[in-house]
Amino acid sequence: MLIQASSYFEMQTTCLVPGIFMVRPRSAPNQVIMEEKFSFTPRVKGNDYIDGYGNIAMRLLIPEGDSTLESSVIAECTETIEVNMDAAYVPIELLPDNVLQFLLPSRYCESDKVTDIATAITGGIQPGYAQVECIRQWVHTNFTRQYGTTNSTTSALDVLHTRMGVCRDFTHAAIALCRNLDIPARMVAGYLLGLDPMDLHAWFEAYVGDRWYTFDALMDQPMGGRIVMAYGRDAADVAFASHFGNVVFKKMIISVKEVT
Amino acid sequence: MLIQASSYFEMQTTCLVPGIFMVRPRSAPNQVIMEEKFSFTPRVKGNDYIDGYGNIAMRLLIPEGDSTLESSVIAECTETIEVNMDAAYVPIELLPDNVLQFLLPSRYCESDKVTDIATAITGGIQPGYAQVECIRQWVHTNFTRQYGTTNSTTSALDVLHTRMGVCRDFTHAAIALCRNLDIPARMVAGYLLGLDPMDLHAWFEAYVGDRWYTFDALMDQPMGGRIVMAYGRDAADVAFASHFGNVVFKKMIISVKEVT
Amino acid sequence: MLIQASSYFEMQTTCLVPGIFMVRPRSAPNQVIMEEKFSFTPRVKGNDYIDGYGNIAMRLLIPEGDSTLESSVIAECTETIEVNMDAAYVPIELLPDNVLQFLLPSRYCESDKVTDIATAITGGIQPGYAQVECIRQWVHTNFTRQYGTTNSTTSALDVLHTRMGVCRDFTHAAIALCRNLDIPARMVAGYLLGLDPMDLHAWFEAYVGDRWYTFDALMDQPMGGRIVMAYGRDAADVAFASHFGNVVFKKMIISVKEVT
Amino acid sequence: MLIQASSYFEMQTTCLVPGIFMVRPRSAPNQVIMEEKFSFTPRVKGNDYIDGYGNIAMRLLIPEGDSTLESSVIAECTETIEVNMDAAYVPIELLPDNVLQFLLPSRYCESDKVTDIATAITGGIQPGYAQVECIRQWVHTNFTRQYGTTNSTTSALDVLHTRMGVCRDFTHAAIALCRNLDIPARMVAGYLLGLDPMDLHAWFEAYVGDRWYTFDALMDQPMGGRIVMAYGRDAADVAFASHFGNVVFKKMIISVKEVT
Repeated sequence: MLIQASSYFEMQTTCLVPGIFMVRPRSAPNQVIMEEKFSFTPRVKGNDYIDGYGNIAMRLLIPEGDSTLESSVIAECTETIEVNMDAAYVPIELLPDNVLQFLLPSRYCESDKVTDIATAITGGIQPGYAQVECIRQWVHTNFTRQYGTTNSTTSALDVLHTRMGVCRDFTHAAIALCRNLDIPARMVAGYLLGLDPMDLHAWFEAYVGDRWYTFDALMDQPMGGRIVMAYGRDAADVAFASHFGNVVFKKMIISVKEVT
Repeated sequence: MLIQASSYFEMQTTCLVPGIFMVRPRSAPNQVIMEEKFSFTPRVKGNDYIDGYGNIAMRLLIPEGDSTLESSVIAECTETIEVNMDAAYVPIELLPDNVLQFLLPSRYCESDKVTDIATAITGGIQPGYAQVECIRQWVHTNFTRQYGTTNSTTSALDVLHTRMGVCRDFTHAAIALCRNLDIPARMVAGYLLGLDPMDLHAWFEAYVGDRWYTFDALMDQPMGGRIVMAYGRDAADVAFASHFGNVVFKKMIISVKEVT
Repeated sequence: MLIQASSYFEMQTTCLVPGIFMVRPRSAPNQVIMEEKFSFTPRVKGNDYIDGYGNIAMRLLIPEGDSTLESSVIAECTETIEVNMDAAYVPIELLPDNVLQFLLPSRYCESDKVTDIATAITGGIQPGYAQVECIRQWVHTNFTRQYGTTNSTTSALDVLHTRMGVCRDFTHAAIALCRNLDIPARMVAGYLLGLDPMDLHAWFEAYVGDRWYTFDALMDQPMGGRIVMAYGRDAADVAFASHFGNVVFKKMIISVKEVT
Repeated sequence: MLIQASSYFEMQTTCLVPGIFMVRPRSAPNQVIMEEKFSFTPRVKGNDYIDGYGNIAMRLLIPEGDSTLESSVIAECTETIEVNMDAAYVPIELLPDNVLQFLLPSRYCESDKVTDIATAITGGIQPGYAQVECIRQWVHTNFTRQYGTTNSTTSALDVLHTRMGVCRDFTHAAIALCRNLDIPARMVAGYLLGLDPMDLHAWFEAYVGDRWYTFDALMDQPMGGRIVMAYGRDAADVAFASHFGNVVFKKMIISVKEVT
């Protein structure tokens, strides 16, 4: 299916502020970028680079005063995501080299501190996909989606106590729990068709069987219609907008729809 | 300035043919991609990857029968290219690590076999930018642009004898001569505003002073208005279309214009 | 100067345990590896790979029962480290692309949560090297080196409260404070000549002026005689030994000496 | 098995000459580096870097006058190489992204110009390993090993006419023929136990079935006991010693033996 997604940001600053934006889609399995647009008003000279995870990041100086960033993408993606309860746990010695880093704890996924809860949730479950799905369901069931309960410093450990947050927090919690079981897990930032209310979205992938599988702790059911914008260890790596100075985001409009 | 460039290919095959297309623009100094489109008809599942030079390559199976590929890009680029006759030769021990590979001979740039001519052309010239410009002018002056005189197996050595060819051949000759003087040189595939007749274009960059400078052996004067699509050692690395099987390119339309 | 450093580990396990060891030296500015040895007894088949930071990591299965790992390195390194109080803060828009990642918070360096203390320590100090040195001295003066007060889950935030720990903790605290000021900082794992008591060591580098400078919050004075083994965001990235299962380290001997 | 290999070069120059040496072993499947030494006399400050193929290259300025370079390596490697006549040709659309580059023609392997001979040799042979082995045997049988018949500018096309050369030339010819059949092939520089007369050695790998297989056109029989030093497209990428200026190699001693 073809999906068109777009982001529109209105920003205001009182001085030049360095910013890094991950609003340019990247290559990913099951995803082909068919069209992409990017504009910043007033026009500023930016430049993009590929980060250590293969994401395309755009650097620019956000100008003083008002500015807007618009980006849109049309991608061919899959209507469904694969579910495979039999995908087995991969012994660490058999993991590809570049997957190993996703076993490590990271800023917002303190996997080294969630042993009790990971063990409790997944007791008796078959190692691999079934464990990940069990974690995903547990987070989905036990967490409440509520804007304003968390902020950019909130970590998995925090929300495993409060059990409230947004997609980012659900995802951090699930990733921390997976890594605690020695299952590689990475964060995905992107767009999801049908998300309600519509917003930028975050979900995760876990490496079981012989590849990365998609999981989304916010949603009831496995759903396709996703455009991957960035991969990383956690939200520190995949922020849509990082800015080093004060920026007021006055308006943000996200739109995702199917096109033909 | 903003430039829009587009490519349109009509292809015909009698069976499925694997193809690799470098029609997606990449990041480059002095270039920001503002909009990009890609479509293939009939729709086929492709996937893109970043090659060893940072280029974005699209892999797909060209379907049996007729098919078309369209791509377009709008990029912010510079109106002029920098000319700096004083940019000095960089001693090899001071070159950045990742520049060293562009000193090596390559398939179409047999720099190890052009010592006599490189020495003859640049005798007495100050090492560095001035040598490269001297080579560029020599190729420009002594070569005749003529379609049909060369093909995909033609190398610098070949055209240094015939002195006829297209932009690709001019570029190969210039690169081979630069490398022979231990000046790193790389091929650029892309679009040039105002090229006449309009076509896909190739030029080169040489590393002198403290960075890569742009040179174009086909043109009289230094001109900006360029969109870089791919970098590489020579045409083997940066082909717009590589196909592994018979494909008839029935039609090819290239367009480059300034937009606002 | 030439330095020889060696590590000897005795391990014991009750089953096969996957392990990743960063005991193979890597290239670094001011460091040339002249000799390197690695042995594991009983012999096991390992394989090494280059991680995302350019470190050489050795993967192997630690066998059941007793085993030993020995590694040694002779490197040419500098007797002193450069001190440059005038090296200025680098505006973020001028940082090299691959340095940007070292501005981000990481598992053990919660730079997003140390604003108060970073501001208090460096008030009135000239942005850049002087700030980093001020932070380094503050940590050095206010922290007590004491084994057994911290463990592998201890982070900068933790030790900024307790102000006790080992080189790893001193380093995490300093890195978090630097990043809070938008100064890129990375952790270094390696060997230091003259460290007393001798041990594996950790220090940090900060990017100011036009390059990475070396800092060591554990030491009184700037000292050379260092062999870099690994770079990373924090201890999660640069552990000498990571193991996924129970391993008892029965003995560990580290030796560092000057040779001729 | 454990193999120790060493190189000793005596060089003489009349001025400082930049050099790049690939004498530090690299990681490879079936190979673990256990010990490595490198020394240059008189002592000079070098620095190493990882090239685009993952090889470790050492850059240094060869001093005026006499100098010597010694390097040695002990590696765990396999006694045999795997032979698998049934490993099938891999359709291009199924090749891993990073293997595709080894389909391209390169400086010394003009695969785009050897269609007639490639077709003639492999007519009727099952696509894949069997074709590669057929090519390898054909080169082995039809080429004569003779020092002094080729030099550093000799390419596959050249030796396919003369049918004389050294391991480097045998390898170039075989690689060009493989690539002509759309089989990825890469050059390997390294050491071979039992080579007679002992020398630096070059062989090749072809990608068939699901991985790279080892082939050696110089040898009668499949033999293990190999230490891989560098991979590349051809000799341009994997030269043990590249120097940019005149260097007389007065003596070169290569030694390879089994150790315990």
